[in-house]
Amino acid sequence: MNIMIDGMGGDHAPEEIVKGAVQAAKEISGTVSIIGREERINECLQALNWNGDNIEVVNATEVISNNESPAMAVRKKKDSSISKGMRMLKEGEVDAFISGGSTGALLSAGLLILGRIRGIKRPAIAAFFPKIGMNDTSLILDCGANAESRPEYLLQYGIMGSIFVEKVKGIENPEVMLLNVGAEEEKGDPLHKESFELLRNADINFKGNCEGRDVPFGCCDVVVTDGFSGNVFLKSSEGVALAVMKRIKQKMTEGLAAKAGALLSYNKLKEIKKEFDYSEEGGAPILGLKGPVLKIHGSSKANAVYNAILKAVPYVEQDVTALIENAITEKSSGEE
Amino acid sequence: MNIMIDGMGGDHAPEEIVKGAVQAAKEISGTVSIIGREERINECLQALNWNGDNIEVVNATEVISNNESPAMAVRKKKDSSISKGMRMLKEGEVDAFISGGSTGALLSAGLLILGRIRGIKRPAIAAFFPKIGMNDTSLILDCGANAESRPEYLLQYGIMGSIFVEKVKGIENPEVMLLNVGAEEEKGDPLHKESFELLRNADINFKGNCEGRDVPFGCCDVVVTDGFSGNVFLKSSEGVALAVMKRIKQKMTEGLAAKAGALLSYNKLKEIKKEFDYSEEGGAPILGLKGPVLKIHGSSKANAVYNAILKAVPYVEQDVTALIENAITEKSSGEE
Repeated sequence: MNIMIDGMGGDHAPEEIVKGAVQAAKEISGTVSIIGREERINECLQALNWNGDNIEVVNATEVISNNESPAMAVRKKKDSSISKGMRMLKEGEVDAFISGGSTGALLSAGLLILGRIRGIKRPAIAAFFPKIGMNDTSLILDCGANAESRPEYLLQYGIMGSIFVEKVKGIENPEVMLLNVGAEEEKGDPLHKESFELLRNADINFKGNCEGRDVPFGCCDVVVTDGFSGNVFLKSSEGVALAVMKRIKQKMTEGLAAKAGALLSYNKLKEIKKEFDYSEEGGAPILGLKGPVLKIHGSSKANAVYNAILKAVPYVEQDVTALIENAITEKSSGEE
Repeated sequence: MNIMIDGMGGDHAPEEIVKGAVQAAKEISGTVSIIGREERINECLQALNWNGDNIEVVNATEVISNNESPAMAVRKKKDSSISKGMRMLKEGEVDAFISGGSTGALLSAGLLILGRIRGIKRPAIAAFFPKIGMNDTSLILDCGANAESRPEYLLQYGIMGSIFVEKVKGIENPEVMLLNVGAEEEKGDPLHKESFELLRNADINFKGNCEGRDVPFGCCDVVVTDGFSGNVFLKSSEGVALAVMKRIKQKMTEGLAAKAGALLSYNKLKEIKKEFDYSEEGGAPILGLKGPVLKIHGSSKANAVYNAILKAVPYVEQDVTALIENAITEKSSGEE
């Protein structure tokens, strides 16, 4: 098995990417490929005194930035880490591709170079969201690959999420819910009402509607959402968690008693911060593409990189892509 | 001035409602009317030894519960606190109506009994969301009055929110942003792209798109959102804040050092919890109705009731309803 990671993507690339890759390479039996500016990546490997033999460096001379038009950049910069990495995945030279670079570019490269699974209408970005205090996560999709949605997309998100969670996390018959504005089944706009009906009749363990406030408390294993509200959900949760932690830090330095209190509870507060940091969770799979592609947060450090590489292993081994294709072909036989 | 509050609405009614009304009555020059089962409300007043003269009790024998079909309940239960209260507002017997009862019923009564301001396409539920650490709030609307939206609704939300914040909070030329999936102006689905254009050309201080993570950090004064994602935003923020605080409580009782730390920082943590509790902020105005209507959280206690009554005063005094009507008539002259 060969897992490829984009050495140039993210705020801490390539140093932290290489560090995470080295950490992972020590633990997995396959190869970790790092794609990007060869010289820089080799420097990082040397700095870490890497002398194992299961890391390969693949040269890619260009880098796509967050400020470029994604589709255009992917087409023009053929020797960028994202374009070339995706091409290698398509050609079977690597088995999975992970990047902390521009989400738009990764998605565009996925669509333009790798392509969608037959029958899949739209790929979806699926994020792991912490079930607070349960040492577990929910998979929430779509988190923004598609700002505009249709009921059939949401049905497919439910099916893909269910397969992924079952195979990669090993949860049998995972519970799926639809993010809506209320728990009752008649809630929502036409998009969500129709999606509810489709999900209810699908061959998944659908448990009905949930609300934004239920998700952090771990209401289910797979949360289906349209890309617009999924994105709002994820970003607002991130904002509130950050704001609370920042506020605690500020407040805890007001007054001597609180300062002493903060010192005593420092480790616990740090643990809580980590629990809410979904960027550590090993990346967001982009489901529906013809191969395992994972997006990691732009702010990812070595540990997040390490987690993502480890998560890619069962994604490849279990052949989730083929399972999704089978499931979708069965559902939509004769439909498309 | 006569501010009416629903004595029967909410989890802690009528006790906490009456308590909050008494607190407010001591401070405002007008009258506070409490509508509901007369006997129960009078008992509560007696228990508090109320002997002032600016509280009036209005008898309403019926109560609409959260489990009833809102529109049906409003039509059938003519002597419910919500139906009768809304009728009294319409007839000018009171100047504002506040309720912690069923949001659906309050909205239905607003639409069916009070009616919309001329030119307003849809009323919106507007919530105050804390700007964390800034001792201030943003007004976010629509938070779920309308699951389905059109660009013209969002334009009107921007105008109504802007007027409300300027007049009731006294912020001159308040900054308005559109909740979207990215900051760039081309972001979003057609609904948000078209809304962006309408808001940009409106006579308000429009500052472009914002994302969910920007709102808790106080990016602007008025956040315009479609009712679906606004509801997702509000509920997920509530869920995450609750989950963080719950987790802190759990973690802080693990181990002696943390326990001691928690004791020392107890007051600070309590202050933080309060900062994130938007239900304390004085209720959510339902903007676009032909009179001041405020929804308070079902879990409201006396303090939230008190805040809502105080917030209703400038809402009435500044005649926000008339200002909205003027603004909308100007914008849409000849359009409707």
